[in-house]
Amino acid sequence: MPEKVALIGSGNWGSAIATKIGVNASACADFDDKVYMWVFEEYVKEEDGKWVRPARGAKPPEGKTWVDEGYTPLTQVINEKHENVIYLPGIELPHNIVACPDVATCVDGATMMVFVIPHNFLAPIVPKMEGKFAKGAIGCSLIKGIEFEKEGDMKPILISDLLQAEMKKSDGAPVVDMSVLMGANVANEVAKGDFAEATIGCTKPENGLKWCKLFNTKDFAVQAVTDVAGAELCGAMKNVVALGAGFCDGLGYGGNTKAAIIRIGLKEMQKFCKVFYGDRQIKDETFLESCGVADLVTTCFGGRNRKCADIFAKNIAAGTPKAWDVIEAEELNGQKLQGERTGTAQDVMKAIKAKGVVDAFPLFSQIHKIAFEGAKPETIIDMKLEKYY
Amino acid sequence: MPEKVALIGSGNWGSAIATKIGVNASACADFDDKVYMWVFEEYVKEEDGKWVRPARGAKPPEGKTWVDEGYTPLTQVINEKHENVIYLPGIELPHNIVACPDVATCVDGATMMVFVIPHNFLAPIVPKMEGKFAKGAIGCSLIKGIEFEKEGDMKPILISDLLQAEMKKSDGAPVVDMSVLMGANVANEVAKGDFAEATIGCTKPENGLKWCKLFNTKDFAVQAVTDVAGAELCGAMKNVVALGAGFCDGLGYGGNTKAAIIRIGLKEMQKFCKVFYGDRQIKDETFLESCGVADLVTTCFGGRNRKCADIFAKNIAAGTPKAWDVIEAEELNGQKLQGERTGTAQDVMKAIKAKGVVDAFPLFSQIHKIAFEGAKPETIIDMKLEKYY
Repeated sequence: MPEKVALIGSGNWGSAIATKIGVNASACADFDDKVYMWVFEEYVKEEDGKWVRPARGAKPPEGKTWVDEGYTPLTQVINEKHENVIYLPGIELPHNIVACPDVATCVDGATMMVFVIPHNFLAPIVPKMEGKFAKGAIGCSLIKGIEFEKEGDMKPILISDLLQAEMKKSDGAPVVDMSVLMGANVANEVAKGDFAEATIGCTKPENGLKWCKLFNTKDFAVQAVTDVAGAELCGAMKNVVALGAGFCDGLGYGGNTKAAIIRIGLKEMQKFCKVFYGDRQIKDETFLESCGVADLVTTCFGGRNRKCADIFAKNIAAGTPKAWDVIEAEELNGQKLQGERTGTAQDVMKAIKAKGVVDAFPLFSQIHKIAFEGAKPETIIDMKLEKYY
Repeated sequence: MPEKVALIGSGNWGSAIATKIGVNASACADFDDKVYMWVFEEYVKEEDGKWVRPARGAKPPEGKTWVDEGYTPLTQVINEKHENVIYLPGIELPHNIVACPDVATCVDGATMMVFVIPHNFLAPIVPKMEGKFAKGAIGCSLIKGIEFEKEGDMKPILISDLLQAEMKKSDGAPVVDMSVLMGANVANEVAKGDFAEATIGCTKPENGLKWCKLFNTKDFAVQAVTDVAGAELCGAMKNVVALGAGFCDGLGYGGNTKAAIIRIGLKEMQKFCKVFYGDRQIKDETFLESCGVADLVTTCFGGRNRKCADIFAKNIAAGTPKAWDVIEAEELNGQKLQGERTGTAQDVMKAIKAKGVVDAFPLFSQIHKIAFEGAKPETIIDMKLEKYY
């Protein structure tokens, strides 16, 4: 029986990954040709060659629908044009990707479910899938980010665990074996077909291999490691290290120093995984995969956190310090640096403090002091590194 | 008895590292205060505020010496001004660093010897040390580069092994336990006191710790791994990967692709070490040290090989291909890209072919095809990567 694949999510990254899944589902006998893609339904229309949506929060006139007003459901546009005109304009989606606004229909009989939705969609969406997907179905989360317990030891919570928890049987046992896909993946570049790599973090090698087969293409090289927690945490922790890299850039520090900050950051990411998820199978080699060193390098040279931290340090040097939210608003065209980005650095510090392991994370601690406690950016190198003699 | 330290070499990197060694030898009771620094004697004079040497190959007039001509021995200038005016101008050397033109005097009674000389100096210089250094002396090589056997299996030869071989007892047993210091270290930045890290590769942990103690300062964080071959080979192999990174830049590829090339390069560096030095204790963690990932990142974003490969790819795209030596001459102000740099990529390929392991090195192979066999730079992503399912 071929695997029945469902893609839950259709934003920028979801649509980009659909280009890989669609090709493989079509070409390979292991998979059912048709892949449903769940789309949060919106209404769109073309104006002067550009697809637009109604203003945020707007409602159609009394007694009318958006369709009456000349709009078309996004799912319909995707299925007719084979293009996600809103979230991935200009890229043709494989024709076997079928947009569908109903998540229950989407996952009906699915044996492999790919999740790529904002994580505040988890609670409203996932329970609707209950009883629809096939027994023994497996899941793969492409959702970046991390949650933290709000009290007690403030422990980090994996999004893949949250997903799995939403799909538990009545006796509490997990019904879906969850993997993750992480890596140095700027969505638009992946969609264009630029060569990129990614990492599957899985619990069972046989499931990891299934996911590799589904995602891997000539321009998207996917490898599996049996380490869900390591792969997923890398994707969140890199945003902390990128603040340190940005401070270096803003201070005009040279290559030696920035490379040292990135490397110490990678080691602290590894330590963080072991301290908080030591009960899982954290593997050292995970950090040499795309989800580890490659994603970190990309983020520390090109990411938004790096850029904002660069500006943050420059503003302090110029005697005109600015708050993070001001920098974000000014530099990112109103696009938020997102709670899970600078916010991650704060949550990570809370978790480290609650666990009583501050001394083990000299870089994370110093980044926090600079970003949120008024320490000068120059103190980035005043880490209390462990002595090695 | 305090350790008696000798520094053999006084070029840019040798003088930079003298700033760390001098401070520690002076401050720490473990070391004898005075550190001899062997200097290849040259004659210098100040002209218009700049120190100059006679033209290359020039001889003083018949019956005269350079001193008669108003020049001063470099050793004398270093010892009077505490500055290596030729190789590290503008940086004050600690006053306990004593320049000495005679290597036998330099290492007389030495218990710790630091080597930082061009490797063509090994054969003429090292034998002169015979019988002078203390019994049980240990050595540390800071020499970057690699040699290869000229025939047969073209095996890579470590410079630290060459050094040790030059100091063997008559029965062939090694007389000096050799370590190496490698890392993301641009010499001028280290000398200025910019924060940097470095890695000691050692065979015996107790010796690694001695070297850490000698080199480690607040702005120069040194850690030891018991892996000489891994640490030393990283410093040579990175120059191969940097060519691939430069091709990506020249082609205008994005962050995903460049990060993938760097990461695959790091894995092939690791594999190369294991294939050719599997009999030594190659450690996975070595590649997460400064000598591994940090030095690689610095070289792939800022090094000379990267720059020349960038230009090489751009010239091909523009329809005006240029040979490596032309690019080097034009772009590096006559400074050679050095045999051990592009040359390393060629020697590495010969060794891989001789061993019959080409398939295990898809990136190194593709870089070689582009750099030396006329393949188009765009084929950098046509690596035959291993399948993971």
